[in-house]
Parts: sequence; structure tokens; C-alpha cells
Amino acid sequence: MTLSAREIKDIRALGQKKFRQERGLFTVEGTKLVEEALQSDFEVTAVYRSQEIGEAAMQRITQQTSPTPALAVVKMKQQDATLPSSGLVLALDSLRNPGNVGTIIRLAEWFGIDTVLLSPDCVELYNPKTVQATMGSIFRVRCIYTPLTEALESMRASGMPVYGTFLDGESIYDAQLPKDAVIVMGSEADGITPPIARLCNGRISIPSFAAGGRGPESLNVAIAAAITCSEFRRTR
Amino acid sequence: MTLSAREIKDIRALGQKKFRQERGLFTVEGTKLVEEALQSDFEVTAVYRSQEIGEAAMQRITQQTSPTPALAVVKMKQQDATLPSSGLVLALDSLRNPGNVGTIIRLAEWFGIDTVLLSPDCVELYNPKTVQATMGSIFRVRCIYTPLTEALESMRASGMPVYGTFLDGESIYDAQLPKDAVIVMGSEADGITPPIARLCNGRISIPSFAAGGRGPESLNVAIAAAITCSEFRRTR
Repeated sequence: MTLSAREIKDIRALGQKKFRQERGLFTVEGTKLVEEALQSDFEVTAVYRSQEIGEAAMQRITQQTSPTPALAVVKMKQQDATLPSSGLVLALDSLRNPGNVGTIIRLAEWFGIDTVLLSPDCVELYNPKTVQATMGSIFRVRCIYTPLTEALESMRASGMPVYGTFLDGESIYDAQLPKDAVIVMGSEADGITPPIARLCNGRISIPSFAAGGRGPESLNVAIAAAITCSEFRRTR
Repeated sequence: MTLSAREIKDIRALGQKKFRQERGLFTVEGTKLVEEALQSDFEVTAVYRSQEIGEAAMQRITQQTSPTPALAVVKMKQQDATLPSSGLVLALDSLRNPGNVGTIIRLAEWFGIDTVLLSPDCVELYNPKTVQATMGSIFRVRCIYTPLTEALESMRASGMPVYGTFLDGESIYDAQLPKDAVIVMGSEADGITPPIARLCNGRISIPSFAAGGRGPESLNVAIAAAITCSEFRRTR
């Protein structure tokens, strides 16, 4: 199988958000992720394997720094946007780092969280770095871009408490955590944005054990999300 | 202040491991990290700020994709290699991803862990991606490259139990975790290597809550390290 210059150009273009959005397509790379795409309910429009198209062609279409043995072109999926009224839900407030967002989607699945809400200014889900960091969870976790104030107000109205991590919150190890809740994660630099912070009726904090109070100011947001999800699950 | 072509070349060379090792120098970038370097007991040999050398020169010396307002050249520090005989210690077994190792050093400090052991085949500590991911913790956490089998044998002999995370270990939420311990983290792809696994007398596991057992196979190693450290601290 030989790829035409046009095909190579079309696949490479999916490295850019503009073309991904225009075409409604994105790429995933690596044997495992390509298999997970094929097994998912996402539509895979093409699969390229280095044994078929050759290493040189793979090198030209990859978004990775080192070539991978397989690449799939996948159609974006319009997710059902119904807000859950039970269980745990993660809400990501203005997270810009693609690796962090992907890692959070992966750990959400680990902790049995099937819906992740993203504020519209979060990094694009189909950024290759986000997709790769999900390690396939992108195909199984429902990720919904939605204005968070409206979504959180509506979920609160339906009885879901909204939890956020704050520097001055109650220790997550002492707090009585509910079974059903929305957990908001804000960016490391700015924290949860003020309009969203006002909607949090649970204010929790991950205590630092650094000696002499001279430790790091914060945890990486994916790390903080993991510890928070772990505590919500553990206490049930 | 104008940088000579030679100076620019010398700083840029520190983007490569070979030159870093040859010169015993590495770079840190960003106002906050440069301040932390200056406040640390590491020797800072030079500081460059864009207000002094101009944006164009910063653009030429940066290792980042976008230019930063400050860059420092720092001398590598020969750490005291005495193994601790109490407290919590992290031991990283063949971790190759610079971002993960940096993130683990940052969370180690958060959880009051002042020594991190790295097997000699771990990624280089002074890789710019590792340094940046530590967010300054590299200046305060003692990071020691050492063959792990000898180090773990010696620490076990001095009474420190060695814990590792395994897919078939006891749930970390149920295990009785000691105050003093070495926590070994292995790579996501390969887990803890067999010679090190044999030295683990505590085998723990982070349970998955994914529905129907079709969730992700593993957690990112920095995420797993965070949950493990959090549990060791919480239960004390």
C-alpha cells in the first residue's frame, strides 16, 4: 500500500486543531490505542500500519516524536449531553495542558467516573497529546464541553453537591465525602475560577506533609484529581 | 547586556545530556523556578532575564517551546548518598519519562518525602522536562541514582520494609501501612523489574472502580505514586 502525497498531507493536517474541527476527525497512535479505537463505538475511518505502508510513510504521518507502528483516523463523536444526577462526575475548569486533561480522563475511568465535563476554554480533547495521555479512556469516558456555571447550577438543583479543592478547604482525609458529587478541578496557576468557586458547597483540601512549610505551593492538577477521586471512592 | 554567539551556543548545548554531564551544569526556566534555584543550596552560575538580554536572545537560549522571562544555569550537586533508615522513601525503578519523574519528585516533597532513589537507567534528572516538572522540588528533595537491589537490601537489613505496587497486591485501602517504608514505583509498561519485585515484602494494589472490568489496564505512574503516598500519609 502506498500513500499518495495528498493522503499524507490530509493526515498530517489533523495535527492542527483548525483542520480537526473542520473535518471532524482526529488521529490516535500506537498499536494498543488503535485496537481500542476499533473496539469502541467511535467510527474509525482509516488505519495505517507501518508493516503495510512502510516506516518512512509512518514517519511522515505521525504526530509523535518517534514513529509508531499504527495510526488510526477516527471520527469525533457527538456525545449525549444529558447531565448525570448521581454518581461521581469530574468538572474541569479552564485546564489548558493537554497531558493533564488526558491523564485525568484516564484516571476518571479507573475510578468509575463515566462523565467528565470540560469548560469551553479547556484544551481541545482531540489534541494528539490529550488523546495519547488518555491511553484509550477517551473512547469510553463521556467528555462534554459545556459552560460550567449552568451545568453546576443545574446539577446542584437536582441534588448533586459540588466539591472543589481549595488551599483553605477542609482536609480531604477528615471530610465526610458523599457518594454522589461533582468534583471541580481548577488550574494549578489560577485555581478554580471565581464564578465556579461560588457554586462549590464542599470546600476540600489535600494537606501537605512537607517539613517546615517550605514545600511546593501546589500539586500538579492531575495528581490532585487522582488523590481526590481516590478519597471519594475509598470512603464508600 | 548582549550575549555572544559563543555564550548562546554554550547555553543551548545544555539541552543535550552529553554536554550537561560534561560540564556538570543544567538549566532551569521561568521566574519562579529561577528564584527557587537562587534560594536553594545549589550554585547558580548565571541568570538571564529577557528584560536584560531581550526577547530574541531568550528565544535562542530557551529549551521551552515558548520563551520564558528568566533562565538560570545551575551547577549539578553531589548529593549525600547515605540511605535513610526511617521515614518514607521513594525508589523509582527504570522510569524513562522525564515528566513523570519530575512530577513524582514534586509530589514527594508535598508528602514530606525527602529522599528519592533512582535506578541508574531512569531518565536523567537534569533533563529540562524533568527539571520543569519538579516545579522547584529538585532543589529541595535529595535525588540519588543508585543500583536499587543493593540499596533496598541494605535498607531492609536496617529494618525498613519495602513496598511495591502490583496488580495482584492487597488493596492499598485495606493494607496496614507502616510509618517507615521504601515505596518502589515501576514503569507503566513493565511494572517493577523482577530482581526488585523479589525484594518487596509489602505487595499493594490500587483497586480499579471501572464498571464491568473493561477499564484502563493501569494508571499513569505518577498518579499511582501520588495515591500510594497519600495513603501512607493518611493512615498515620
